Amino acid sequence: MEYKRFHNTIIARIDRGEEILEQIKNISLKENIRLASVTALGATNDFTVGVYKVEEKKYYSNHFEGDYEIVSLTGTINTMNDEFYTHIHMSAGNDKGEVFGGHLNKAIVSATCEMVITIIDGRVDRYKNEEIGLNLFQFEETIKL
Amino acid sequence: MEYKRFHNTIIARIDRGEEILEQIKNISLKENIRLASVTALGATNDFTVGVYKVEEKKYYSNHFEGDYEIVSLTGTINTMNDEFYTHIHMSAGNDKGEVFGGHLNKAIVSATCEMVITIIDGRVDRYKNEEIGLNLFQFEETIKL
Amino acid sequence: MEYKRFHNTIIARIDRGEEILEQIKNISLKENIRLASVTALGATNDFTVGVYKVEEKKYYSNHFEGDYEIVSLTGTINTMNDEFYTHIHMSAGNDKGEVFGGHLNKAIVSATCEMVITIIDGRVDRYKNEEIGLNLFQFEETIKL
Repeated sequence: MEYKRFHNTIIARIDRGEEILEQIKNISLKENIRLASVTALGATNDFTVGVYKVEEKKYYSNHFEGDYEIVSLTGTINTMNDEFYTHIHMSAGNDKGEVFGGHLNKAIVSATCEMVITIIDGRVDRYKNEEIGLNLFQFEETIKL
Repeated sequence: MEYKRFHNTIIARIDRGEEILEQIKNISLKENIRLASVTALGATNDFTVGVYKVEEKKYYSNHFEGDYEIVSLTGTINTMNDEFYTHIHMSAGNDKGEVFGGHLNKAIVSATCEMVITIIDGRVDRYKNEEIGLNLFQFEETIKL
Repeated sequence: MEYKRFHNTIIARIDRGEEILEQIKNISLKENIRLASVTALGATNDFTVGVYKVEEKKYYSNHFEGDYEIVSLTGTINTMNDEFYTHIHMSAGNDKGEVFGGHLNKAIVSATCEMVITIIDGRVDRYKNEEIGLNLFQFEETIKL
């Protein structure tokens, strides 16, 4: 992985064999990112995405192998208890163009992954919401409508 | 729904049971947004997306229920006749990872929706294009290539 | 196609019959864009997307015709040997909501395409990586982790 920072934007190239979420963490810790949005495209030959079933409070994942193009990868970097946190959803198309996706657990880069991280000058934390069973955004001095 | 504004970026958490397009409108009116790009991830258990058939000038929609992860949600907030307007497309993956999407009419949040709104200091209006049958971007002092 | 630039953001409307990648090039050359991220939604009735098979170093493409909504279009504009380069992935949903996508080769707009280009004040070039067989990001004064 290599990256370059231009003011509040980071452009990264994640390389063959590397795992995307790990590399987001590496960049975040190195650059002290506390809040950012993330977008990327690329190719993966091994990824796991899933769906959370709220009624069951249980997470189901699907594993895919083969030649896939990442058609969307979107999410945020923020903090939970002041520590690094990232939440990414991804979808990818196979050799027929069929697209599969969900909450991203793991994606190994096959060819390349080209990522844009937009750093936001602010802070949003997370807290465990017991009703939903997930770690949700927690704001300070929030506007609640 | 709760949100916080950091200069030109708004981070929002849309909560279980809330409808996404309504919440985009709520934030926009509260913050006087005239032009912005929108991106989000999240989970929905009830959404309607569709396709516009240009030849027929007719819109066909599909309704989905069940556990879905929003894998992409993208679009803009702008104005038409100086009033709030938003145009969003969304795709979501089911428990097998299969992805469905289109023009967004409605999406009820099941677990959470995490949204990033990037406010643009400018103005783009819309006008009804009779040939296409849709409300298209209208620019002032535009560069036409 | 028409567009308007607001500081570092370009909002564009690509019109019926126009090809998206050509219009990205037109805007880039006109505005001297050297680095930017791109996102869009819209509708297409004729598009080609594909998958690169790294082991074979061969690219396979799929062609689609009919009424499709562009649900995600993401990528970058940068340079290779100081000349314009763009790399875009796209996915689109048909009239049942089924989504297909991959690396974008061509997409003809059927109704409209609404694009947001965020210009980044920096420079990232590309080089042909012989092992992968693709043109990858090349940074100057890079941080390599």
